[in-house]
Amino acid sequence: MKVRGKAQRTIWTGSDGVSAGIIDQTSLPHGFEVVRLASAGAAAAAIRTMKVRGAPLIGATAAYGLWLALRTDPSDEGLRAAGRELMATRPTAVNLRWAVQRAQTELGQVGPAARAEAALALAERICDEDVAINTAIGQSGLPLLRALAEKGKRRVNILTHCNAGWLATVDVGTATAPIYAAHDGGIPVHVWVDETRPRNQGASLTAWELKNHGVPHTVISDNAGGHLMQHGEVDIVIVGTDRTTATGDVCNKIGTYLKALAAYDNGVPFYAAVPSPSIDWSLRDGVREIPIENRSEKEVTHIAGRLEGGLVAEVLLTPEGSAAANPAFDVTPARLVTGLITERGVAEASETGLRGLFAER
Amino acid sequence: MKVRGKAQRTIWTGSDGVSAGIIDQTSLPHGFEVVRLASAGAAAAAIRTMKVRGAPLIGATAAYGLWLALRTDPSDEGLRAAGRELMATRPTAVNLRWAVQRAQTELGQVGPAARAEAALALAERICDEDVAINTAIGQSGLPLLRALAEKGKRRVNILTHCNAGWLATVDVGTATAPIYAAHDGGIPVHVWVDETRPRNQGASLTAWELKNHGVPHTVISDNAGGHLMQHGEVDIVIVGTDRTTATGDVCNKIGTYLKALAAYDNGVPFYAAVPSPSIDWSLRDGVREIPIENRSEKEVTHIAGRLEGGLVAEVLLTPEGSAAANPAFDVTPARLVTGLITERGVAEASETGLRGLFAER
Repeated sequence: MKVRGKAQRTIWTGSDGVSAGIIDQTSLPHGFEVVRLASAGAAAAAIRTMKVRGAPLIGATAAYGLWLALRTDPSDEGLRAAGRELMATRPTAVNLRWAVQRAQTELGQVGPAARAEAALALAERICDEDVAINTAIGQSGLPLLRALAEKGKRRVNILTHCNAGWLATVDVGTATAPIYAAHDGGIPVHVWVDETRPRNQGASLTAWELKNHGVPHTVISDNAGGHLMQHGEVDIVIVGTDRTTATGDVCNKIGTYLKALAAYDNGVPFYAAVPSPSIDWSLRDGVREIPIENRSEKEVTHIAGRLEGGLVAEVLLTPEGSAAANPAFDVTPARLVTGLITERGVAEASETGLRGLFAER
Repeated sequence: MKVRGKAQRTIWTGSDGVSAGIIDQTSLPHGFEVVRLASAGAAAAAIRTMKVRGAPLIGATAAYGLWLALRTDPSDEGLRAAGRELMATRPTAVNLRWAVQRAQTELGQVGPAARAEAALALAERICDEDVAINTAIGQSGLPLLRALAEKGKRRVNILTHCNAGWLATVDVGTATAPIYAAHDGGIPVHVWVDETRPRNQGASLTAWELKNHGVPHTVISDNAGGHLMQHGEVDIVIVGTDRTTATGDVCNKIGTYLKALAAYDNGVPFYAAVPSPSIDWSLRDGVREIPIENRSEKEVTHIAGRLEGGLVAEVLLTPEGSAAANPAFDVTPARLVTGLITERGVAEASETGLRGLFAER
């Protein structure tokens, strides 16, 4: 999508042909910095320090990391070692494991001499596939927004939680895909951006990308959405997902479940944008079966922002000595979900709905 | 309640006999500063700059402010002028208006020579009445917590939102009253403290007062409560209220409604602590009838905290140029409320329930 009027992806092959470029997302929203990754170690560090984040983007970065490793050591052992190093960066990231294993399998079939070149082609293919899936999700969701615009005869108010935007993917995003498709297609939209404590990916990333692409939006505290829905200020909720069960339960950033409850209570349609690689066909009960990561207390007790002078600093919010807890995700049961927007169309949030679109599973 | 092991109120008559003492709540939780109010102007400024906040405490501070004004000018015009000055500090605060009007009526019946002395007696009476109501709310709610402790045979996990603690009142608090009563009575309790963006009164005030009184507690993001309830980690929710309708709808800090929805969805009892002065007997539909204050965008875009070096500073959280919206309260419909804990006992959240306890209304 656009940054300062120019089309931009989150990761790309460097014009020097021997590196990858990324946006340092830890400097957003107060700075925009491009970083050059010239080694597998640099790619691993970028994932570990969350310069890149978001499941699809982590996978793509790992694929570039393998290429950079194979440029130095294209041996079988080099391929295995680089895979181990990259997978260790974020042990729970499903896409990371998937991308590395896929790459190891494909590249293992290529002789060492041609491996680096094949790895670059694969990394670029993984990126293009991500963009293609997201673009298709946008086309799947677009008719929902068009229908709301025609029905309401006013701009469509969309609420989203966290960042399931292009910054979490290679481009276009998942929850944002229908929004960008609508905006670019001339449908008037306005986005309520949940700030999404504790890491504030809504306030810092979603707001930033919407602003740069020119999409009207307003940041709100995570507490405000229910009130806005009670007063008719939200026409539709669209969120992303980290993992979706075969039965349509949606695991996403902590707080998503509260918005789903409010949407249900007020008759507001609630959709999750679901790229099919995020569907876990082995799971049937999200609340019971999906383990929820408890992240550092410090994400709750501290927050970073820009001081008046321009420097970015971290401040303590809680009393010295008060404990904090930080469950990072929650599960929204399928009964609260109006539909799942996939790259093959919109499915009912149920096993029947999902298998109707993905009959081969 | 206790601060550094010593009993403390939020406002008191100074030992010099010519001033009132308050805690500067804007310095919490990182500093504890007592301020001396020696004039009506100082009392008005303390309300305006939110050194004191919380409806009952604002009312008590205004009563002290009238006393300080009458010490200088006890004339009828002096009484009227001081009332005007104090009422203008927070135009929407119902308790402020109530306290000033009550004081003006009572003191108008006293001759100028005796007015200052009568005003001091009245301010102290208003404070003692507040403490008596809150203590009675504590006794009303205590059996609920005792029953949960006996049933669960483990510590009772209470979730609360915002600060309806002793810092919002003169002492004891409203939502916290049953919690302090249980803790002081030997019932094991643990409080999940919603941080309560955007002003973070949970993380900065509720956590601070629980810590100082020695009550086990854990700060969580506002997004986390639903997930905790899904997993049996919350036994009861107790919140405060700014205004309650005759039919039991509860207007409270933004985000309360979301917690009520989650409690209802998970079979967790949801109570509001309701001092009877906060019941508006003229209202029947809270969502439609109660106007919701939209506060400054800056409360969403910025937050204050303590830098590593110890200084308190404000940081910007959102991208330059992104708008924010800040509705400050929401309304929880009575259908989601298990009961209202009043100074006369626990009422069903309905007109029948409330009129059963307050037959004189």
